[in-house]
Amino acid sequence: MKAFPTVAAFEATLATLPEPDAAARDAATARQGQLTKPPGSLGRLEEIAIFLAGWQGRERPRIERGRAVIFAGNHGVVARGVSAFPAEVTAQMVANFAAGGAAINALAAAAGLALSVVPLDLDRPTMDFTTAPAMSEAECLAALNAGAEAVGDADLLVLGEMGIGNTTPAAALAAASFGGDASDWVGPGTGVDAQGLSRKAVAVADGLSLHRDHLGSAFEILRHLGGREIAAIAGAVLAARAKRVPIVLDGFIGTAAIAPLAFANPGIAAHCLAGHCSAEPGHVRLLDRLGLTPILSLDMRLGEGSGAAVAVQVIRSALAAHDGMATFAEAGVATA
Amino acid sequence: MKAFPTVAAFEATLATLPEPDAAARDAATARQGQLTKPPGSLGRLEEIAIFLAGWQGRERPRIERGRAVIFAGNHGVVARGVSAFPAEVTAQMVANFAAGGAAINALAAAAGLALSVVPLDLDRPTMDFTTAPAMSEAECLAALNAGAEAVGDADLLVLGEMGIGNTTPAAALAAASFGGDASDWVGPGTGVDAQGLSRKAVAVADGLSLHRDHLGSAFEILRHLGGREIAAIAGAVLAARAKRVPIVLDGFIGTAAIAPLAFANPGIAAHCLAGHCSAEPGHVRLLDRLGLTPILSLDMRLGEGSGAAVAVQVIRSALAAHDGMATFAEAGVATA
Repeated sequence: MKAFPTVAAFEATLATLPEPDAAARDAATARQGQLTKPPGSLGRLEEIAIFLAGWQGRERPRIERGRAVIFAGNHGVVARGVSAFPAEVTAQMVANFAAGGAAINALAAAAGLALSVVPLDLDRPTMDFTTAPAMSEAECLAALNAGAEAVGDADLLVLGEMGIGNTTPAAALAAASFGGDASDWVGPGTGVDAQGLSRKAVAVADGLSLHRDHLGSAFEILRHLGGREIAAIAGAVLAARAKRVPIVLDGFIGTAAIAPLAFANPGIAAHCLAGHCSAEPGHVRLLDRLGLTPILSLDMRLGEGSGAAVAVQVIRSALAAHDGMATFAEAGVATA
Repeated sequence: MKAFPTVAAFEATLATLPEPDAAARDAATARQGQLTKPPGSLGRLEEIAIFLAGWQGRERPRIERGRAVIFAGNHGVVARGVSAFPAEVTAQMVANFAAGGAAINALAAAAGLALSVVPLDLDRPTMDFTTAPAMSEAECLAALNAGAEAVGDADLLVLGEMGIGNTTPAAALAAASFGGDASDWVGPGTGVDAQGLSRKAVAVADGLSLHRDHLGSAFEILRHLGGREIAAIAGAVLAARAKRVPIVLDGFIGTAAIAPLAFANPGIAAHCLAGHCSAEPGHVRLLDRLGLTPILSLDMRLGEGSGAAVAVQVIRSALAAHDGMATFAEAGVATA
């Protein structure tokens, strides 16, 4: 049974998002106040532990089935010269993931995350969105469902992507969802030069103009301007929310994937942590629009879920302190 | 044999600091350029791997004997009402470290660090530096040597501290080493109120005034205004440098400990990573003066080495990527 058998089912799920478990969250908050440290002195680590308590529904959250999933897709818009790398690199990097040689392999292993790779019709790129909708309704639904299926029984989920050219659809989704000009959202990606950057801005502007009468819903924005790996991330985020599974978002593309969801329901990011702030300039703006504060800012700009996987290390530290520390009473330490 | 048998030996070590292994650093830099990612796209992770390659003297650095050391001391200046907690808490927290119940226990374990606790004459607080030098020459040397001894055979060292009232001597060291008024360097610490903050500023100003004619060397600054755990950190940083062992600094106090060393030799911080930027307002100024960019900014303000221990998680990720990734040639991936 698919998570989203129809577009209507997808839209209905997006309209009725569950909230975190308030009792578990409150119990975790109370626990933090009793641990042997000045109140609040673990800063963001305390917030992360409390956040996960709410979404996992237990006072002492833990990561036992942490998983990183990389969705991969190809993009017709690369014909517009928007990437420094040839489109064949998407499949080559998928092979590199399978062989264990990519950054995300090392970073997921370091963070204790299982890794899955989901290539999505790499030999059938999306349509060039400057000339046609990127996907048919059936193609977009299939990508959303591929994402939903990848949630599985994870108790924390890192969502990564690989897709040569995909900062361009990401910028288009951000602009369609949050407004602003194409130039507000495009950036150097993996390293295009000034002319490439200019081509990206023109492509995004062309896409927004062509489809401007068809951007009224999350699904239609994703379908017209997105890509398979991007729609899969959106599907995974939404399906995870329905199960209260917390998400660690990665960079510009992974965050742009939920911009259309936020267009329809601004509460969509409540179960998401922003793993890091990418060097891609549009990312900080996306995080701001979504009300997310990144855990890390390490000038990373690789994608693959790499920044989010590093952030999981910090999350593990937060949970270790929350679970392992003694209370003032247990330790016989005087309070202030 | 003590690392610093005399004050002259300490000063001589500080005057002749070794540099990193340029060949290992260059080899690591070259390797980063060949890994399957756009050049520079792992951002700070690349810099960290290259930094450690230089100091460990191997193209692929690793953490096999990572260690966190917490030095603890008590401070006569607490008589001036500079802390929200009573001085007994220092020993109570040392007992908590020994029992495994403190934040650093959980965070060091999460980061795969061995943990040592070095209490330094807790029943003999330093003198109140507003009325006398904090330590005698022999006491300060003993603390420096205790720090040096703790380096052992570590290949990465986190330096933490515990000492009720110790943000006040830390502020005094920062002011004596880098200039500025007492009010530029004092902050709320573990949570004093406005009156407590005012008492801290007065105490620092009084100490600076009383000892102003005796603050001409690293040793004399540490001796007059520091504390045992602070001098121990300074001794550990200097002894580690002599062995080219990289250091992860923690927060305001641990960073202030090397301010007197930087007063004498501005190159002292070259083997140090700043683990995080503390919420204590003087910390960002200290890091700026030392030319250090923090790995994390998580609003932590606990001390104990806690922020540095979390940063080790990021460092482990950096090394995992550096060591584990395939090159473009190995993976058969096309370059840009």
